Amino acid sequence: MSGSVRICLIGAGRVAKVHANSLVKHVPQGELVAIVDTSPDVLQETAEMFSIDSQFTTFEMALESVQFDAVVITTPTFTHKDLAVQAANVRKHILLEKPMALNLEECDEIINAAIDKNVLLQLAFMRRFDPEFQAAAERIEAGEIGKPMMIKSLTHGPGLPPAWARDLKTSNGNLAEVNSHDWDCIRWLMFDNYKRVYVEVANFKGEARGVDTENFYDTALASVQFENGGLGTISSVCPCDYGYDARVEIIGEKGIMQIGQMGGQAVVVCTDQDQGLITPIFRTWPKRFEWAYIREMEHFVECIMRGKEPKVGGDDGRWAVAGVLAGTTSFLEERPILMREIMI
Amino acid sequence: MSGSVRICLIGAGRVAKVHANSLVKHVPQGELVAIVDTSPDVLQETAEMFSIDSQFTTFEMALESVQFDAVVITTPTFTHKDLAVQAANVRKHILLEKPMALNLEECDEIINAAIDKNVLLQLAFMRRFDPEFQAAAERIEAGEIGKPMMIKSLTHGPGLPPAWARDLKTSNGNLAEVNSHDWDCIRWLMFDNYKRVYVEVANFKGEARGVDTENFYDTALASVQFENGGLGTISSVCPCDYGYDARVEIIGEKGIMQIGQMGGQAVVVCTDQDQGLITPIFRTWPKRFEWAYIREMEHFVECIMRGKEPKVGGDDGRWAVAGVLAGTTSFLEERPILMREIMI
Amino acid sequence: MSGSVRICLIGAGRVAKVHANSLVKHVPQGELVAIVDTSPDVLQETAEMFSIDSQFTTFEMALESVQFDAVVITTPTFTHKDLAVQAANVRKHILLEKPMALNLEECDEIINAAIDKNVLLQLAFMRRFDPEFQAAAERIEAGEIGKPMMIKSLTHGPGLPPAWARDLKTSNGNLAEVNSHDWDCIRWLMFDNYKRVYVEVANFKGEARGVDTENFYDTALASVQFENGGLGTISSVCPCDYGYDARVEIIGEKGIMQIGQMGGQAVVVCTDQDQGLITPIFRTWPKRFEWAYIREMEHFVECIMRGKEPKVGGDDGRWAVAGVLAGTTSFLEERPILMREIMI
Amino acid sequence: MSGSVRICLIGAGRVAKVHANSLVKHVPQGELVAIVDTSPDVLQETAEMFSIDSQFTTFEMALESVQFDAVVITTPTFTHKDLAVQAANVRKHILLEKPMALNLEECDEIINAAIDKNVLLQLAFMRRFDPEFQAAAERIEAGEIGKPMMIKSLTHGPGLPPAWARDLKTSNGNLAEVNSHDWDCIRWLMFDNYKRVYVEVANFKGEARGVDTENFYDTALASVQFENGGLGTISSVCPCDYGYDARVEIIGEKGIMQIGQMGGQAVVVCTDQDQGLITPIFRTWPKRFEWAYIREMEHFVECIMRGKEPKVGGDDGRWAVAGVLAGTTSFLEERPILMREIMI
Repeated sequence: MSGSVRICLIGAGRVAKVHANSLVKHVPQGELVAIVDTSPDVLQETAEMFSIDSQFTTFEMALESVQFDAVVITTPTFTHKDLAVQAANVRKHILLEKPMALNLEECDEIINAAIDKNVLLQLAFMRRFDPEFQAAAERIEAGEIGKPMMIKSLTHGPGLPPAWARDLKTSNGNLAEVNSHDWDCIRWLMFDNYKRVYVEVANFKGEARGVDTENFYDTALASVQFENGGLGTISSVCPCDYGYDARVEIIGEKGIMQIGQMGGQAVVVCTDQDQGLITPIFRTWPKRFEWAYIREMEHFVECIMRGKEPKVGGDDGRWAVAGVLAGTTSFLEERPILMREIMI
Repeated sequence: MSGSVRICLIGAGRVAKVHANSLVKHVPQGELVAIVDTSPDVLQETAEMFSIDSQFTTFEMALESVQFDAVVITTPTFTHKDLAVQAANVRKHILLEKPMALNLEECDEIINAAIDKNVLLQLAFMRRFDPEFQAAAERIEAGEIGKPMMIKSLTHGPGLPPAWARDLKTSNGNLAEVNSHDWDCIRWLMFDNYKRVYVEVANFKGEARGVDTENFYDTALASVQFENGGLGTISSVCPCDYGYDARVEIIGEKGIMQIGQMGGQAVVVCTDQDQGLITPIFRTWPKRFEWAYIREMEHFVECIMRGKEPKVGGDDGRWAVAGVLAGTTSFLEERPILMREIMI
Repeated sequence: MSGSVRICLIGAGRVAKVHANSLVKHVPQGELVAIVDTSPDVLQETAEMFSIDSQFTTFEMALESVQFDAVVITTPTFTHKDLAVQAANVRKHILLEKPMALNLEECDEIINAAIDKNVLLQLAFMRRFDPEFQAAAERIEAGEIGKPMMIKSLTHGPGLPPAWARDLKTSNGNLAEVNSHDWDCIRWLMFDNYKRVYVEVANFKGEARGVDTENFYDTALASVQFENGGLGTISSVCPCDYGYDARVEIIGEKGIMQIGQMGGQAVVVCTDQDQGLITPIFRTWPKRFEWAYIREMEHFVECIMRGKEPKVGGDDGRWAVAGVLAGTTSFLEERPILMREIMI
Repeated sequence: MSGSVRICLIGAGRVAKVHANSLVKHVPQGELVAIVDTSPDVLQETAEMFSIDSQFTTFEMALESVQFDAVVITTPTFTHKDLAVQAANVRKHILLEKPMALNLEECDEIINAAIDKNVLLQLAFMRRFDPEFQAAAERIEAGEIGKPMMIKSLTHGPGLPPAWARDLKTSNGNLAEVNSHDWDCIRWLMFDNYKRVYVEVANFKGEARGVDTENFYDTALASVQFENGGLGTISSVCPCDYGYDARVEIIGEKGIMQIGQMGGQAVVVCTDQDQGLITPIFRTWPKRFEWAYIREMEHFVECIMRGKEPKVGGDDGRWAVAGVLAGTTSFLEERPILMREIMI
């Protein structure tokens, strides 16, 4: 393929702005040619921010009016399957936001559509492209800390999720919407699949914030056993009132590795001996994963240009969904769930 | 009580040396007057190290020959009940190493003996006296991070435990021998008791180190639900080949708190740009908890002198044992265990 | 001005590659249209790396063949004056690498040429565009640490400088080639000019590396008094064998602020309790100041497009040169030098 | 010598309490038998704090009434020479607080008296006994960072010094009262003596705090050249309003080493994403150097018991005084001072 890769952005919300920024500012071979959002206000705001004239309220309208090679799907989870399958059917390559879909059947439909139509399917697990996470993965693979025995991954994020994302009837809750990255990372960095999942959840803040959704939780702790016997844990807090926090700790047979830290910008101040040192933290995920989002988009564009397979694909998205489903079943049934109960 | 508190040390092994050092060097009002150990070699080595002439191979012999007010019991767990009850019966105050005992019946015998004979019973959870842990507890109690929602405690320690300590027939394994402190800390710092426990274990190093004990594990992950709905996790690695590691992270409704760090001495070196910065870690628990051991012994001596109740006692020891028993049952039966199944 | 800003890069060495990368990858409104270098090999390598066909061995040839709006001058210091004046004369905007020039007369020629020809002159003090340095400057200006009393800035860099850069006959040595950024930063962050400069130098590594240049030094320490009475120090080490290191510490009447740290990527590993924790450092200045270089180029392009004055200009470059000259005079004459002796 | 070492404490102020605490709580072989202070209130407060009945307002009275082997002199600098010579004359070993004395003549009188009377003279440079500083010194000596090229030492301390200590007529100001430790440390850790000293000073806070003493300064920066060509700097801030801060950075031919850090207790909290992480600092020197004071006193007592020479003695104290005198001369005369001008 020659020239630039023309891309249509479907969904114009928060993460869409991040992807648009990557395309417009930092990935010269990718060209953002159209934006789609069902909400005219959101659509206009994002499109104007990046000076994109081609604005549409449906994907169909974009298809009719503009030529493009690929889509970036950033809409709510429950829309993923239809949009992704539709995109595959018109032979557009797909960068699909997490979580991949609501259940394994939907995942399979997407995967099969991409295979059938021979389009690339990349899952937007941007941590796979973060310089720190990547360096860590390479160093683990090189054997620096020995065979991984235990992994602890956490994502704590500010802000109450939207109503659809905290209701188990329309989403898989925080385990999916907040912690998909953790489910992906623990598989990636343990170089192994989950075998058994146990989850405890808690609801500390729902009432005070007017959430009376059944089974709502704002705090969760997943305990995972891997196929090779390794152990893992995922910690989830959302809304998290101290900021955005994403860290991983891996204990191998020979050593320990920590990826990420709470501290952000290296500007340290002390003005009060009783209070002590103050260090900024990463307040938002776009800031924490600034390079990861750029590298992710570069990878997507490069895969399309060179016709090579993205290094994080449908199967990775499917495993993360399966982990979430096992976790949800676990806390609802108050028992550990074997993955083979889920991945029938 | 006037004058100094005379103390007999029962058990002369590693932690005994730490307590002896506190008494001889840093707690002037405590006097180490006798040491007991069934192994003449261990006995002599420790007694000489602290210039103690009164050396005995049985507690009875010490009782016959030397006057003292209190005992510090540092022998293997399976001896705790008999020695503690015996000490109580001759009206000696007791500083008892962790884990308290093998089961709840033994815990109750010790607690009741101490009550009946009106002697003080202090459990050697020295983290309760560590300046960092104490400051953290006070700050949590003062509401700095809001109501605690989740706590993560880890203890990873070097060195294969002795044979008795890794066999579930003679001990409760690493969950007890290594992680008693975590079981105590999570109750202390969550200001709540456990309600449900789930544990996964793994055995990565046993075979290579010639351990074929049934049910041996070197890696464990406990998932805890507290009575108030809070969540907790305990991470256990032993033998841990990267050093000694003890840290806690608490997430409250308003904020997060971290206690402890891997880095030890603040001497940072860089001599190789490819390797980067090197910071020493705490290699051993006596070094990490140097002040905690001194403060613990000060507290014990002060309680005896002033006739006041130690701030960590039999009930705290009993809860830690109950947590361990729930955990062991959980991984053996592969299901979450309610504390009410254990604490009948 | 509409459309993109067309830029000719003069000098194709290390820092030229950094600027080319910013232009080609991250500043869509800037277009790299030509590269000039007197060395055909260096020219070809850099031009190919960024797919630039217009390659020239002289600036004159570039002027004849290609249309452009601006130049980025990255050649050795002793060429700056002629090239910058020549560029101004043909009405090209100028982004000029540090140090600005060899002496104040040259600085003045450049400044006057830019004024006469009404072209923008931006000095490439990229730390002014680093997110951490910028945040720090804003926080100091907002009064967070009170009035600055003392500033300590260090730049230690790996690699023996080229022969011309370590000889006081053809350059101003490390104080200029390595520490121009420090001279700029201490003025910027103290919000004041130097009044007096005293410098000590040392030569520890020259002999072993075959350098017998007169007055060569690899280690230097400048002591600065500011006009308002504040104090400053600049530390210089080059070649520095542990990596690249750039940090600033500012003590104000109310507090202290640290900018930057030795640690780079937040991937921490421990595999040996005797060695301890290992944290990567920033090994190179392009990596440490990755965003600074991008933001610097964005600023240059934006200033040209909007016709606004760059926020770091000729006067800042001139002050840094003056500091260097005072410093060199100081260590040669072994006495403190008042700036008024230099800035006649 | 058998039994314990009996010690008389001369001066009962702040540092006297620290030494008394070491003796009473942590150095069992040292016995605090008498306290002397000219102020009855200070005397009584400190004596009661440590339950010492033998309280005297003059050293002569203590000598008449109590038997002891050694003195710890903590009185103001201008009294050191007379008290130390007097103590030597009655054959008492001497632990002498810093700065040693007001000038080199006084230093020599003390040194000669100790030699003549064959008593031990230890200077209270407690950083020499700090576990971190000691480990660093050993690692430098072992060659870990190569030959030291540059050292930066800072001591910033809270609180306006007493009137006598900020007046150059009765003391040598902050360079002596605050930074004696830095003068000692840079010699110790560079394994070399100073050759030339240049000092800049500033007075930012004097007026606001009602200090109109001539030549008063609250901020100082010393630039030092060592005999082997190495460079050093000492940074002084007092009163320092952000807390107590004592750190050293050493650059060797092979690497860099940092000793100490601003952060104190490892309890990190974040409750506000806009503010970020908060880490306690060391607020006071007794806390920062808690173990250093204990080890220093252990060393003094052990030297007396074993008749061995203390590892930091009169000559070290004399060099620190010489550095201070060179520094004061430098800022008064606004020129670098060669040590041979001072050490005639």
